[in-house]
Amino acid sequence: MQTHLTVRNVLTMFSASLKGISQVLLIENAITGFIVLVAISLYSVPLSIMTFMSSFIGTVTAKIGGADEKLISQGLFSFNSALSGLATVIFLEGNHLWIIALFSAVIATVFTAGMMHLTKPFDVPSLTFPYIILTWFLLTASHRLQFFEVINSLVPQGLAYWHLDISGPVDLISGFTKSIGQIYFLDNIWSGLLILAGIFFASKRLGMLAIYATIISLLAAYYLGSEHSLLSSGLYGYNAILTIFAVSDVFHNKKKLIPFSGLLAAVISVLITASLDSFLLPYGLPPLTMPFVLSTWLFLFARKLMPNL
Amino acid sequence: MQTHLTVRNVLTMFSASLKGISQVLLIENAITGFIVLVAISLYSVPLSIMTFMSSFIGTVTAKIGGADEKLISQGLFSFNSALSGLATVIFLEGNHLWIIALFSAVIATVFTAGMMHLTKPFDVPSLTFPYIILTWFLLTASHRLQFFEVINSLVPQGLAYWHLDISGPVDLISGFTKSIGQIYFLDNIWSGLLILAGIFFASKRLGMLAIYATIISLLAAYYLGSEHSLLSSGLYGYNAILTIFAVSDVFHNKKKLIPFSGLLAAVISVLITASLDSFLLPYGLPPLTMPFVLSTWLFLFARKLMPNL
Amino acid sequence: MQTHLTVRNVLTMFSASLKGISQVLLIENAITGFIVLVAISLYSVPLSIMTFMSSFIGTVTAKIGGADEKLISQGLFSFNSALSGLATVIFLEGNHLWIIALFSAVIATVFTAGMMHLTKPFDVPSLTFPYIILTWFLLTASHRLQFFEVINSLVPQGLAYWHLDISGPVDLISGFTKSIGQIYFLDNIWSGLLILAGIFFASKRLGMLAIYATIISLLAAYYLGSEHSLLSSGLYGYNAILTIFAVSDVFHNKKKLIPFSGLLAAVISVLITASLDSFLLPYGLPPLTMPFVLSTWLFLFARKLMPNL
Repeated sequence: MQTHLTVRNVLTMFSASLKGISQVLLIENAITGFIVLVAISLYSVPLSIMTFMSSFIGTVTAKIGGADEKLISQGLFSFNSALSGLATVIFLEGNHLWIIALFSAVIATVFTAGMMHLTKPFDVPSLTFPYIILTWFLLTASHRLQFFEVINSLVPQGLAYWHLDISGPVDLISGFTKSIGQIYFLDNIWSGLLILAGIFFASKRLGMLAIYATIISLLAAYYLGSEHSLLSSGLYGYNAILTIFAVSDVFHNKKKLIPFSGLLAAVISVLITASLDSFLLPYGLPPLTMPFVLSTWLFLFARKLMPNL
Repeated sequence: MQTHLTVRNVLTMFSASLKGISQVLLIENAITGFIVLVAISLYSVPLSIMTFMSSFIGTVTAKIGGADEKLISQGLFSFNSALSGLATVIFLEGNHLWIIALFSAVIATVFTAGMMHLTKPFDVPSLTFPYIILTWFLLTASHRLQFFEVINSLVPQGLAYWHLDISGPVDLISGFTKSIGQIYFLDNIWSGLLILAGIFFASKRLGMLAIYATIISLLAAYYLGSEHSLLSSGLYGYNAILTIFAVSDVFHNKKKLIPFSGLLAAVISVLITASLDSFLLPYGLPPLTMPFVLSTWLFLFARKLMPNL
Repeated sequence: MQTHLTVRNVLTMFSASLKGISQVLLIENAITGFIVLVAISLYSVPLSIMTFMSSFIGTVTAKIGGADEKLISQGLFSFNSALSGLATVIFLEGNHLWIIALFSAVIATVFTAGMMHLTKPFDVPSLTFPYIILTWFLLTASHRLQFFEVINSLVPQGLAYWHLDISGPVDLISGFTKSIGQIYFLDNIWSGLLILAGIFFASKRLGMLAIYATIISLLAAYYLGSEHSLLSSGLYGYNAILTIFAVSDVFHNKKKLIPFSGLLAAVISVLITASLDSFLLPYGLPPLTMPFVLSTWLFLFARKLMPNL
């Protein structure tokens, strides 16, 4: 009996950890979480292991901390941990990688709980805000602490010395599939397609919205004259997908065939991406999913006073 | 009958749009709004048209979005749109100017609704915060998107390379009148005087407060050793005027002859202007009316616990 | 009778001002406040006078403003003023030092009242946030206003030109004692020891926690590879002490022998110190006690949803 309970406990936590991985997509579905793990494995097996471990640590931390069991089982305390684990492995290098990833998974959970409290008076979800701020702080700490070794591509640069050069080919197929993969930092066509399959598995409507948002964001970014290399790497698309999920489906009751305000929010996420790229340049930081968070909050807040939005 | 109603609807929206232009001054008065439009026309007719169109689009957006009719008719959903239209034409150039201005008028309204929700628990108005953040984001997006062409004077510069040089003549008459004009970006003496007339038309008390605030802020900025060129262009004064309006009249019941806390808030807006100029230098951004927003919030918040303030 | 009352009033305000000095340590104890004043005098007598005067001005401002008498008498309206006075004398120079310090003491009180209102919906204390933001704004204003002369060591520098060099000896005794002294900007071993005595006088438990936090933060900062010179000056330790006071004692009912979450928060304050040092480098600003504020808020917020933390 005791053993049975323990086994069930472990299974519940496994499920919660997989759901944490799918909650990055605002989806509560353990199988979608598992499909995403496979997609990450196509790109890198250690990265996949770290993602699951981080999500698991997030689940355990929330349990020890005494958080609400239902929220834990829905993966709502672990998705920020999963992402912070992913981001650590993607952006840091050196011997201390694993310690940092696991430590930041703990902090991400604490931060998630904190943000849930902070956003309560405003009646909006805290989304991936905790993981973003945590990752930005870890990456900037590297300039002062030798323990943290950041990869070479994240170089601080004064905005005064920046010159925009958008030349180069646009690869639309790459841009389309990688937009989906970049939600999990996967610069890989097949990973992107597999994640799209995982989204369709959970909800056909979300799958269609993902395709909508990717096309609209690619068109918007192209028409607005963004760098073709970023476009082809999907770096203008992943925030648009998450934004339309949040604005037009997950946190919205009216499911429309053509979700106008969601598409508007997706385009705004493109503009915010460009702005944040500029704001963060002097610190050498990536925008992560902040454009999604800001664009989604903007619309969820505004709907309280403009219900037709 | 139907036609009559439609005509009345259009007239209401016209009035709301004019009030939106006067609400920049925290004044709800369509005629003051019209006087301001004339003042803008003295500086540039296209700018005047764009300001009205932006305010009108803000009104329409709020209506379609289903916002509160009374707030719309008071111009409270359109003043941020009017300002974002103005700012776009002032700080951007190129072929896409009008599209950007009209698009940002829509977003400014959505943002205004969002901020109204966000500031509700704190019982303060959101003021011009939405337009400021929106404009800052649009201007920084220009470094990453060719669609946005920023004028040459907004150059990012590292604070490490900045040297203060306050020399040059101080033109007090210019500084006084342009302080009023700069509320609407009008670097023009006659426009400033006409706007002052519009303020007096709405409220003699506000007209006197405007004169108080301008003199105090000019004295403070001069005595603190600010750049004489900024002083003469009114760039240290316009925030002080708006601040004293908010702190000593519009959001305050006790109308005193010598509004001490309002004058203190006006002086603080001068200090915040200087600080923000430094903080924004690496991004090449103007402070806009953020000193007014921060200074006003500071005093409105503080009054909840210090009622004699 | 009237005289008697006035004398008592002055005495109450004296006591409130001394308590304001001790409230920097989250301690309400006039004698501890007096011991701290003596510790400051060991470093610099004028600094000590300015600290008391600033705290006194804060008390007077709150009284005139009509703030709650009980909160005033506990020193809760004056500790930000005491710190802003201290910071002004430490970081500015020139003839206007005293005027700036006394003026900022007034503003610090207004800001404290404002923040109390702003943090109310979240049920957390505003800590030293007002003084930090105020000091950052005053220091950056110096680039635009000749009235403010900042000391030479606060030089803005692009993060792109920063190279970490941690070499040099580590002086553990200096690091330990100065960690305590740096709470009041005192880079002095004897001052640090005297302040520790003042803490023990108020509460043995807080004294022990101070020692815990200092050791843990020194170990963490050393192990993470921070600059040895900062370590030896106590610049990685003072935030850890305040954090453990807040998280494990003052704002926490469960007094544990080994306060695990407080120690975790203390380590996080070390990481936040390193990050903030990077974020603030382009503006030449010191982190002050912001790592303490952020780390403490993180844990106090999180506890609302994770009560075992």
